Amino acid sequence: MSEPVIPRGFRDFPPEVMILRKKILSKIERIFQRYGFDPFDTPAIEYLETLSGKYGEEAENKLMWRFKDPWSERWYALRYDLTVPMARYVAMNRHIPMPFKRYHIAPVWRHEEPQKGRYREFYQCDVDIVGSPYPEADAEILEVVWKVFREFGFESVKILVNDRRILRGVFEKELSISDPMPVYRAIDKLDKIGVEGVENELKKIGLNEDLVRKIMKTIDLRGDPSEILGRLEEMYRDNKDVVEGTKFLYEMISYLPSGINIVFDLSLVRGLDYYTGPIFEAVVEKPRIGSLAGGGRYDDLIALFAGEKIPSTGGSIGVERLIDAGVELGIFKFDKKTVTHVFIVVLDRSREIMSYAYDVARMLRENDINVSIDLMRRSVSKQREYARKLMIPLIIFIGRREYETSKVTIYHTETQERNEIDKKDLVDMIRKILGGEAGSRL
Amino acid sequence: MSEPVIPRGFRDFPPEVMILRKKILSKIERIFQRYGFDPFDTPAIEYLETLSGKYGEEAENKLMWRFKDPWSERWYALRYDLTVPMARYVAMNRHIPMPFKRYHIAPVWRHEEPQKGRYREFYQCDVDIVGSPYPEADAEILEVVWKVFREFGFESVKILVNDRRILRGVFEKELSISDPMPVYRAIDKLDKIGVEGVENELKKIGLNEDLVRKIMKTIDLRGDPSEILGRLEEMYRDNKDVVEGTKFLYEMISYLPSGINIVFDLSLVRGLDYYTGPIFEAVVEKPRIGSLAGGGRYDDLIALFAGEKIPSTGGSIGVERLIDAGVELGIFKFDKKTVTHVFIVVLDRSREIMSYAYDVARMLRENDINVSIDLMRRSVSKQREYARKLMIPLIIFIGRREYETSKVTIYHTETQERNEIDKKDLVDMIRKILGGEAGSRL
Repeated sequence: MSEPVIPRGFRDFPPEVMILRKKILSKIERIFQRYGFDPFDTPAIEYLETLSGKYGEEAENKLMWRFKDPWSERWYALRYDLTVPMARYVAMNRHIPMPFKRYHIAPVWRHEEPQKGRYREFYQCDVDIVGSPYPEADAEILEVVWKVFREFGFESVKILVNDRRILRGVFEKELSISDPMPVYRAIDKLDKIGVEGVENELKKIGLNEDLVRKIMKTIDLRGDPSEILGRLEEMYRDNKDVVEGTKFLYEMISYLPSGINIVFDLSLVRGLDYYTGPIFEAVVEKPRIGSLAGGGRYDDLIALFAGEKIPSTGGSIGVERLIDAGVELGIFKFDKKTVTHVFIVVLDRSREIMSYAYDVARMLRENDINVSIDLMRRSVSKQREYARKLMIPLIIFIGRREYETSKVTIYHTETQERNEIDKKDLVDMIRKILGGEAGSRL
Repeated sequence: MSEPVIPRGFRDFPPEVMILRKKILSKIERIFQRYGFDPFDTPAIEYLETLSGKYGEEAENKLMWRFKDPWSERWYALRYDLTVPMARYVAMNRHIPMPFKRYHIAPVWRHEEPQKGRYREFYQCDVDIVGSPYPEADAEILEVVWKVFREFGFESVKILVNDRRILRGVFEKELSISDPMPVYRAIDKLDKIGVEGVENELKKIGLNEDLVRKIMKTIDLRGDPSEILGRLEEMYRDNKDVVEGTKFLYEMISYLPSGINIVFDLSLVRGLDYYTGPIFEAVVEKPRIGSLAGGGRYDDLIALFAGEKIPSTGGSIGVERLIDAGVELGIFKFDKKTVTHVFIVVLDRSREIMSYAYDVARMLRENDINVSIDLMRRSVSKQREYARKLMIPLIIFIGRREYETSKVTIYHTETQERNEIDKKDLVDMIRKILGGEAGSRL
C-alpha cells in the first residue's frame, strides 16, 4: 500500500469546486467570444530554451518548473504563462491572418512556496490581439477584461493603467537608471511589502538613499488619467518617451466605453520583462486582494522568436483570485455538489420494476435531464440519504404501484411537495420545476 | 533570437481545431452529465511513487514522463491516465458519498515515439463509478460510452466485452500460466501486430509452442454473448473464476438497453494491470482505427492507496481517435476558423463615425453576438479580405451615410445579400440569420 499524497502546493478539484469553476470559466469564455476572440491551446510542456530569457531572472531560475527528461536528456519546462507559448506559435505560423485574436484558458505552473490562496498549478484566462500596433487594440483588451468583472457583479472594479514608455522616460532619462527592470520588479511588490519594503529592496539593488527617495516620490502619482497625463506632459514635455506614452494612453482611453473606471497610476509597473507600451491591472476595492487581472503591450516579444517585430497586446485574468474575491463578496457560492437533477429511488428490485425504472431514467436522459439511479442496491432510506447528501433537487420513487399504473412519484426537496404523475407528463413537469436549470446545471 | 520550436510529439491547437474539439468535448460532457456524472479534476503532476506499480512495467519505465525536480530533488511524473489520480483522491477523501460518479476530461502525457495520430499529450474523457460492486454499475459505464458514439452518429459501433475472471480462470487454471499479465499484454497487441506477431511475443516471454497454440485457439472465441457465455459455462463448469465471470456478464448485459451491439471476445484482454472484472472496448467497423474507448472494473486499485477495498468501474474515451475516425467518416469537419459572427468594416475613421461603429459593436455584444471590428486601420478591401479569410458569416459596413441615418449596411457572405437596415432592428435580423448559431458558434 502506498500513502495517498497529493504533491505539495497542488490541489484536487472535487465536483462542488469544479461546478462553480466551470460555470465561471464558461462565462468568461463567452465574454471573450463576444469580443471576437477565438479558442486556442498549446502543450503543457515547452523546451526550456523557448521560455528562457522571457520572464526575468527570478521567474526563470526560481519559479519555473524545469526538468531534464531522463530518457532524452533534454531540458523541458512546464508552461509558465500563456503568452510566451502563443508567441512561439505565432512565430512558427507566419501565415495566420492578422490580427490574431485568441483566448486561452488553461493551467500554468509555478514553483512558488505554497501558501494560502497560492498554488503551484493555477489557471489563467488570457486574451491577446497579435498584429495591431494601435491603441484601439489595447482599449479592446481593457474593455473585455473590465466587462468580465462587471458581468460578474464586481461593481467597484478599477483599471489601473500606466505605460512602459512613460516609465522608461522617467526612470532612464530623468532619474538616469540605465537598467530599470530590477527597479520595476521592486516597485511591483508595493502592494505586498508596502512603501518601506520597496525602499529596502531598492537599496538592496544598490540605489542610494537620495535616488530611492526620488523614485518613491515619483511613483506616488495617481488619479484621473486626463489630469495626471496632463501633468506628466507638462512636467516632461521634452522627454520623447513620456510624450509618446501619454499620447498613446490618451488615444487608448478615447476608445473606451463610458462608465469604465480608469485610474492612472505611476507605481503600476508589472514585473515581467516583455512589456513595451500600455500596462494595466484590474483591482477591486473590496476585498483588498491585490490585482485580479493584468496585462499590457509587448511589441518585441514575438520578435525574439520570429526575428521580425509583431506588435501585440493582451491581458490575463487570474481565476483563483477572481474566485476568492467573488466568494468573499458573496457573488460566488460553492452551493452545488452535483449536476444531477433527479435521483431515482427504486422501491422494489423485481425484474419488471427495475426495467420500468430504467425506462424512466432513459426517457429523462434523452430529454436532457441529468439522472442518477441507485447502483448500490441500498435500502430506500439509504438511497434518500444519498440524494440528500448530494442535494439533488428531485427524487423519483418507483415501486409496484407506479409500475402498474405507468406513473412515478416525484418529490421536490425544496418545496417538499410530493406528487404522483403519469410517466408521459414527467418530462414537462420536471422542466417546469427546473426552469432554466434543465440541460446543464453548471 | 531563439528558434521557435514546439517539443517533438506535441502540437498546438489553433482556433479551427479548438472550435471542433470544444464542440465535441462539450457534447461528450453533456452526455456524461445526463447519466449523473459530475465534473472533477486533479493536478497534471503527481509524485512518482503515486503512479508507480499501477500500470505495468513498460508504462512505468518507458512511457511515463517522470522527472526529478532540480530544486527539491523529488521525483514527479506527469499524469499517465486519469484513473490512478482519482483513486489517490478517493483514498485521501474517505468521507465522500458513495457511489462517487465523476467524469474527468483532461490531458495525459505519455513518452511514446511520435507517429501519425499519436501524440505525447492527448486528452482522455473518463467516467467512473466508485463504490459499487454491482453489474448495474458496469452496465451504466457501457451504456454511457455507447451513447456517446451513437449520438455522434457512429452507427456501426460495437462494444467488445470480456471479464478478467474468465481470463484468469482460463489462463491460470486451465492453461497453468501463473503470471498471465505479460500474456495479456502480448494478446492486447493483436490488432496492431496480428496473430503471428502475438505468437512471436508469447514465445519471446518463454512459452512453449504447444502452449502458444492452445492460447491462440482459446482466444479465438467471439460472438453473441448469450451464445459464447453459454459455451464457456459448459466448457469450464468447474472453474470457479470462469463461472463467476460469466454470471456477472450475464447480469450486466441484462441492464443494458436494447439496440446496443455487444460482442463477447475472449481475445480482449486490456493491457493495464489493474482490471479485476468486466473489461470492454468500443470499436467501429469503419474506419478500422482500433478501439475508440475502453475500460473495465478495478476493484483492487483504490485499496493500493486506501488499504481497504473500494470496488470501482469505469471507461475512457480517446478523443484523438474519436476525432480522427469522425473526420474520416465525414461526421466532423474542421469548417470554422473563428467563432466571430460579425465583422464591422469602418468606411470612414472620423471620430463620430468610429464612435457610432463602437456603439453598434457594443450593442451586438450585449446581445450575445460575437463581433470583431477593424483594429488595423486597414483599407476597406483589406478589412473585407480579413473577414473572408476567417469565413466570418456577416459583414457590417459603417460609413457617413449609415451614421447619419442610424442605419448599418449588412452583408451576408453565404447568400451574398446586402441590406441597409435600422440599427434598432439589427439584433433581431442577425439572430434570424444565425438561427441556432447565435450565442455560441462552438
